Amino acid sequence: MTFYDKLNRIWRKNNSMVCVGLDPDLKLLPDCLKLTEFPLFAFNKRIIDATHDLVCAYKPQAAYYAGQDADDQLKMTLDYLRTHHPEIPLILDAKRGDIGSTARMYAFEAFERYQADAVTLNPYLGTDSLKPFLDYTDRGAVILCRTSNPSSGEVQELGCDGETLFERIAVLARDRWNYNRNVLLVIGATFPQELGKIRRLCPDIPFLVPGIGAQGGDVRKVLENGLTADGFGLVINSSRAIIYADNTENFAAAAREAAAQLRRTINENK
Amino acid sequence: MTFYDKLNRIWRKNNSMVCVGLDPDLKLLPDCLKLTEFPLFAFNKRIIDATHDLVCAYKPQAAYYAGQDADDQLKMTLDYLRTHHPEIPLILDAKRGDIGSTARMYAFEAFERYQADAVTLNPYLGTDSLKPFLDYTDRGAVILCRTSNPSSGEVQELGCDGETLFERIAVLARDRWNYNRNVLLVIGATFPQELGKIRRLCPDIPFLVPGIGAQGGDVRKVLENGLTADGFGLVINSSRAIIYADNTENFAAAAREAAAQLRRTINENK
Repeated sequence: MTFYDKLNRIWRKNNSMVCVGLDPDLKLLPDCLKLTEFPLFAFNKRIIDATHDLVCAYKPQAAYYAGQDADDQLKMTLDYLRTHHPEIPLILDAKRGDIGSTARMYAFEAFERYQADAVTLNPYLGTDSLKPFLDYTDRGAVILCRTSNPSSGEVQELGCDGETLFERIAVLARDRWNYNRNVLLVIGATFPQELGKIRRLCPDIPFLVPGIGAQGGDVRKVLENGLTADGFGLVINSSRAIIYADNTENFAAAAREAAAQLRRTINENK
Repeated sequence: MTFYDKLNRIWRKNNSMVCVGLDPDLKLLPDCLKLTEFPLFAFNKRIIDATHDLVCAYKPQAAYYAGQDADDQLKMTLDYLRTHHPEIPLILDAKRGDIGSTARMYAFEAFERYQADAVTLNPYLGTDSLKPFLDYTDRGAVILCRTSNPSSGEVQELGCDGETLFERIAVLARDRWNYNRNVLLVIGATFPQELGKIRRLCPDIPFLVPGIGAQGGDVRKVLENGLTADGFGLVINSSRAIIYADNTENFAAAAREAAAQLRRTINENK
């Protein structure tokens, strides 16, 4: 099954475009988990158990595991998800980008070591840095286009022969990189006008949309600008607003409520 | 001591601008090492023991460890280097680039977990993605500018208001990102003219130069175009041509000879 197929099924099955970011920071976990042997995994497991029927994807952020010497807990999280919820797409947020021989090693990391369904990628190095990922026909390549952070315009909005850089990236993704129909683009919810521009350029490429919640993006504007003709096309990520909705031992129920609320907001405004 | 100070000392002490890339691929290691418990580390240790007086830096490529489930051997390699050769700069080649809160986790990975002296970074996300690294005043931030791979021009040579994107990145690095005097730029040896352009824009920023050897860059042209006024300014990386100079049990002596030869070629053409 292709990554697009997997997304199309889960959007409809769970009637949801909510993606939950699994970015556990040991310092922010509920006290009841801090002393367990694998606290990041224990936290993720509880979040997954509480939200799996409400989401269209999970997106673990690799930095949280790499920075906390917890690669094993990233693996445990992905293994748990794949075993219990094989229908839910797993997007490893790693923003890899390197030359060909090295990119092959990173593709192996994402798709073999962690067996993720998709991985986020940085386009700065061009086609040969993306090809080892694009060539996995049953996995997704989620390419940064217009990111959600405040400084993203500094480089991504540079004018390139009458267009902005991020528009050029979108066109490259559409015309050169999507030869296996497995490309997605990252467009921040914090830039809804730009999201609309990219939707017009790429009417049927799915977008991963970070930046709602803690970063301030507006769900309604995302939907207005980003939906595809069939009323889907978006993987709307929320991390902190869901996983840290409550930091007592009630955190999982609170995460469920926050995810359900986001799904409702999305579905009422579609 | 700042990263610039550390580089300036080792360039002169070892009379060398050679950087050895520690990119061990289990499939390519000499047979005598393949069955040891920590083969990547055992290989690196022998390479380090044989070359440490000939180099100005070591550059382990994170992908080779991440892709082979060997994060522990990356840590062992950096620990060994720091203990036995504290004067040699360690550049973690990880090409990180993410939004602020996540970038802080990656900075922690590079500078605390692995205690690298410097890390390579992708500029596509702009200032807030770089700041958590730049704020470590005693570490180096090695920012991709014009990479050595064949497709690099596809994005990096896009015309931006009369300049190319990579020139804009160089100017941002010089004027906005180097506030702690700890920025380096990555310029591929495969593009010597571009290297000269960037040297004129940034007369005193050190360059990390990959792409000689297996990728075909010419050392003489790199020196003609890239030296700073004091006759240094370059960290010229070679990985495969040194570490795989021989694949028998004689590999370490062969690596030493290849590193010595590269140092001679550089010093005779300065």
